[in-house]
Amino acid sequence: MSTNNTYVPGLEGIIGAQTAISMVDGANGRLVYQGYVIADLAEEMSFEEVAFLLWEGQLPKRGELEGLTSELAANRDLTNAATTALEALPKDTDPMDVLRSIVSVQGVEHRLAKPTRPLAVHATASFPTILATFHRRRQGLEPLNPRPDLGHAANYLYMMNGKESSPEIVRALNTYLVLLADHGMNASTFTARVIASTESDLTSALVGAIGALKGPAHGGAPSAVIEQLEQIGTPENAEPWMRDARKGGVRFMGFGHRVYRVYDPRAKILKAMCERMNPKFYALASKVEEVALRILHEEHPERPQSTNVEFYSAGVLQAIGLPKEFFTPTFATARVSGWSAHVLEQVAHNRIIRPQSEYIGPEPRKPVPLTERD
Amino acid sequence: MSTNNTYVPGLEGIIGAQTAISMVDGANGRLVYQGYVIADLAEEMSFEEVAFLLWEGQLPKRGELEGLTSELAANRDLTNAATTALEALPKDTDPMDVLRSIVSVQGVEHRLAKPTRPLAVHATASFPTILATFHRRRQGLEPLNPRPDLGHAANYLYMMNGKESSPEIVRALNTYLVLLADHGMNASTFTARVIASTESDLTSALVGAIGALKGPAHGGAPSAVIEQLEQIGTPENAEPWMRDARKGGVRFMGFGHRVYRVYDPRAKILKAMCERMNPKFYALASKVEEVALRILHEEHPERPQSTNVEFYSAGVLQAIGLPKEFFTPTFATARVSGWSAHVLEQVAHNRIIRPQSEYIGPEPRKPVPLTERD
Repeated sequence: MSTNNTYVPGLEGIIGAQTAISMVDGANGRLVYQGYVIADLAEEMSFEEVAFLLWEGQLPKRGELEGLTSELAANRDLTNAATTALEALPKDTDPMDVLRSIVSVQGVEHRLAKPTRPLAVHATASFPTILATFHRRRQGLEPLNPRPDLGHAANYLYMMNGKESSPEIVRALNTYLVLLADHGMNASTFTARVIASTESDLTSALVGAIGALKGPAHGGAPSAVIEQLEQIGTPENAEPWMRDARKGGVRFMGFGHRVYRVYDPRAKILKAMCERMNPKFYALASKVEEVALRILHEEHPERPQSTNVEFYSAGVLQAIGLPKEFFTPTFATARVSGWSAHVLEQVAHNRIIRPQSEYIGPEPRKPVPLTERD
Repeated sequence: MSTNNTYVPGLEGIIGAQTAISMVDGANGRLVYQGYVIADLAEEMSFEEVAFLLWEGQLPKRGELEGLTSELAANRDLTNAATTALEALPKDTDPMDVLRSIVSVQGVEHRLAKPTRPLAVHATASFPTILATFHRRRQGLEPLNPRPDLGHAANYLYMMNGKESSPEIVRALNTYLVLLADHGMNASTFTARVIASTESDLTSALVGAIGALKGPAHGGAPSAVIEQLEQIGTPENAEPWMRDARKGGVRFMGFGHRVYRVYDPRAKILKAMCERMNPKFYALASKVEEVALRILHEEHPERPQSTNVEFYSAGVLQAIGLPKEFFTPTFATARVSGWSAHVLEQVAHNRIIRPQSEYIGPEPRKPVPLTERD
């Protein structure tokens, strides 16, 4: 059954899935989770509440929220196999590769298990432990046990830093986790759904999604924002550096998005947080943003403004005190809630996702035997 | 830019990629690799020759084949981290989970690497070592070092069994590996391309593909063929067992395929091999196939014959002496050549694969505060 015989590179504009989990309303600059706009959730709800919303389709009642909070706190430990594998990784391993590998080991099974909400909770609970354990080890420090009395964001920061963070910092990380928890049919979420559509397990879907998020064209670029800002150095240097860089074909990091026609609603919230929490970063970054948008507009006046979520994320995560190699893994720590919600939705109404390909190779001919090929 | 606003479940009929690597000509029952039909390759070429063909687009000259054979043989060892992680896995771990985890650990990097053909060779070379090392360990046996004097198929069997296999058995495994090396835009290959399209690395793409292949709707079913045949027991029992099973809604394992309208050309070759190598299996399986096709035809006369590649694969892999839990991992050992070829092709002409989604959730409304939700 062929319904569309024209190849569309990148499947741009093709509908890959129907979902109730989130809507990216690019025309109006709205991101909606299960019927709630992100601006109403970001600074009001805990990550635990939003994860419940994504998984269950409704905000939790008090008892449900307490149940989920306990369930997350009770499932933060790594298996022995995961701990041993983590200790065996070289200390300079890319933390995204650590996450991909140890989520895989943590989720090994002796036979195929169907994705369920408890399994989604277990996986979500494990991400901060994996990252913080690796971070402590690479610094030559003893890893810490998770703290069941702390919420998801607070425990992550405690395990990374060895001390509790201030309520303001915890709140900022919580907002970041809520903002990044889901975003329609991005490449990593689509990867998770394709894998789940074969009737494979949740771990396989999440491990594939981590690998997709790692790519700089998806989630792998926020540390590159910091690196570019470091090269620019001062607000005064923004215009000359960027005009010069552009002549050499340098890409401005943190700009460009396929969907939003107006300012990304997540970037708007992160920008305000950044101004409040990280004024030094903000002074430079807001000037760089202004120049970048001006140059991009000169080059392509028809294109909309395009500051993306990664640009001010970098400043917020820096203010929170996370090392830049942990920016993308922290993105994954948020998005695992959305990935697992999409997997549960996919398996509830499944059909294997298997597009066609268009063959552009040579016409069939007879092979020449090896002895006659020279 | 919206080009298709109708959601097609499973992306059936949508073109997900253009490729020169293989063509599944379902109407004529032909599978073509880079311009050669599978029937001309399967029993004539080594796996190494076919891997070269998939990666380079042409059959190797003698020197090129020697070069690739040496390169594969020289890259069979696991890293220390991979060896340690493998030893830490519980002995009853699903071998697909072993493969997913240890391929991930084996491929960790300290910074992002672009997919290249040497990296494809390294990954392909490692699969038999990972599987055989785990198989030996779970039997309580010492793992063996790879044998650089043996070809890819022969070395895999040597490392699994602790002795060299007969030329006939090696040749049969080689043919299996060639037949399963690539197959258009199946779900695992598509997964690998989506991950690679984010500019992520080869290991991430392969690990995602392994997870997709694990699903029973894709590559995870060949051991289920054996299990169903064991339940049926004898050719005489086929008709009564299967009619009864069908009443209970049991699926016949090894039947059904989205693409072929005539007999799968791979199944045809495997069926002949099975008759020759595994007459006991063949006597039962060919009777079961006859009954299955008859019942399926009665139920859906409009549908074509549908014996798929997994049905007779099971008999061939059993005759080769592989344990049934290693059938799908051996499929992966073949397909890694195709997956990596697709990744190299994707990154050479890249555009991020990011479809849209259609939102089917509730209309945006204001959230009720937690205290008012009970």
